[in-house]
Amino acid sequence: MHALFQFDWLYLIGTAAFTVSGYLIGARKQFDLLGVIILALLTAIGGGMIRDVLVGRTPRIFLDAEPLYTIFGTLALVWLIKLHQRNKGLLLKLFIVADSIGLVAFSIAGAQVGIDARLNLFGVAFLGFVTAVGGGLVRDMMVNDVPFILHEDFYGTVAILVAIILFLLYGWGYAGPLVDWPLFAFGLALRLIAHWREIRLPRVER
Amino acid sequence: MHALFQFDWLYLIGTAAFTVSGYLIGARKQFDLLGVIILALLTAIGGGMIRDVLVGRTPRIFLDAEPLYTIFGTLALVWLIKLHQRNKGLLLKLFIVADSIGLVAFSIAGAQVGIDARLNLFGVAFLGFVTAVGGGLVRDMMVNDVPFILHEDFYGTVAILVAIILFLLYGWGYAGPLVDWPLFAFGLALRLIAHWREIRLPRVER
Amino acid sequence: MHALFQFDWLYLIGTAAFTVSGYLIGARKQFDLLGVIILALLTAIGGGMIRDVLVGRTPRIFLDAEPLYTIFGTLALVWLIKLHQRNKGLLLKLFIVADSIGLVAFSIAGAQVGIDARLNLFGVAFLGFVTAVGGGLVRDMMVNDVPFILHEDFYGTVAILVAIILFLLYGWGYAGPLVDWPLFAFGLALRLIAHWREIRLPRVER
Repeated sequence: MHALFQFDWLYLIGTAAFTVSGYLIGARKQFDLLGVIILALLTAIGGGMIRDVLVGRTPRIFLDAEPLYTIFGTLALVWLIKLHQRNKGLLLKLFIVADSIGLVAFSIAGAQVGIDARLNLFGVAFLGFVTAVGGGLVRDMMVNDVPFILHEDFYGTVAILVAIILFLLYGWGYAGPLVDWPLFAFGLALRLIAHWREIRLPRVER
Repeated sequence: MHALFQFDWLYLIGTAAFTVSGYLIGARKQFDLLGVIILALLTAIGGGMIRDVLVGRTPRIFLDAEPLYTIFGTLALVWLIKLHQRNKGLLLKLFIVADSIGLVAFSIAGAQVGIDARLNLFGVAFLGFVTAVGGGLVRDMMVNDVPFILHEDFYGTVAILVAIILFLLYGWGYAGPLVDWPLFAFGLALRLIAHWREIRLPRVER
Repeated sequence: MHALFQFDWLYLIGTAAFTVSGYLIGARKQFDLLGVIILALLTAIGGGMIRDVLVGRTPRIFLDAEPLYTIFGTLALVWLIKLHQRNKGLLLKLFIVADSIGLVAFSIAGAQVGIDARLNLFGVAFLGFVTAVGGGLVRDMMVNDVPFILHEDFYGTVAILVAIILFLLYGWGYAGPLVDWPLFAFGLALRLIAHWREIRLPRVER
């Protein structure tokens, strides 16, 4: 086992942020209560489920239900906050930071599963990417929006970069928390700078 | 093995109903013959395939082709009936009942797979749900409709409730046909009453 | 192991064609660079990944990255060719032939995986089909087009026919290159004739 437990609260922050993003889109599309809960759930756990299916594991959430407390707690909280929706600007900033924490923490977790399964660089990058953005992908495909990662800014790229760097560092023998934490900080900084500076990848010419 | 064989004809009724729902949507969207067959097939077997992939089994339909006779028989029958489409009201009522039978029977079957795999409550509820509604979900996503379970009435909720109750009863040591049949009757009644009374879940306020 | 290595260059041609089709659709929809690369990648490897997940294997691309050279090489080439886009008619014809080669070669490869896993006829046909068209399916679902196989002409049918014939021939004891090559030639001819003669399956009457 990796010393992953140290990351636990980062996952929980990410899980909460992904829950909120599913909730907001479900509410905007005026789904019923079950629809909103399903969308929030799938956004939060979809990436991890796809990752586990790809490497042939039973989805972790089916064995360890702990993230569900975060998800349902978040849903209850969002419901309450909605009743007094002041200070939207601050909430949005909080959401961006929480979502970015989730992006990087999920990418590192996914990449580590790939490294443990002795996948090649592509497999590790794919697992990091799909763990981080898979939930949002499922959410967008279900509501028939074009997946945000296909036309949004510097988001999925961060997950891929982080996973590739982790693969290389572990391959060179640098494994453990001393690698994970600086990498996490790097990925988070990259994402937040990209967001606030609106860095975008070039568009493909037709 | 569970004493599931007693449910066999319920699955077949459900399979037939799901086939019809895929057929009708494919025909409405004017797909070609292969497209309609694929859509009907995926609607009927999609839920079971997703369930099997989630628990790491080879899809049962790849080993035991029996449901296919039902599917292709249903397709042939629908084709024929179409030629003399009288009595649409009765057919629609028949369809609703058959579809509800499928919903509950598939949910119980999915939940039992989860219980056998020793999943937690969430895993069992998820498998019951996905077995029951997964085919319709795939169908709707393929034709780019927003999945019916996200905005329709009291449908997926029944599958989840049934799976949760099964989990609890089995956990408390009440297993077997004496549990399955009353639960099936309860689920079916719940669904049909919800349908005819148009019970809906509350919408989420924005 | 089957004597599949002889087919290797056919897969590579197919992989290149599928890459191009993903690229073209991503560019038309004006995704950013990462979006186009993801779409091209998923189109090229999506079918094989779905196949591997269905039979419970780690996706081959996670262990053997060779097709990636073809994919990224193709992307680079397409990029360059775009700069001097003369002779579009010839390019289109080349693309149709390469795409058809991929369709048939992927179908045979998928069917052989199913035969090796001792699946029934349906399982083998499904794997052949999904290996051949799964990438295109994922591509179309991601960009919210109705999957081409649901309304396009004689395309998926070829993959299914080829897989069924392979299943029957292997079942009757005719296995190996002497079966694979004529079957490949037959499937390719069928697809190209269907394309140029615009053979279509009948539409389903409403």
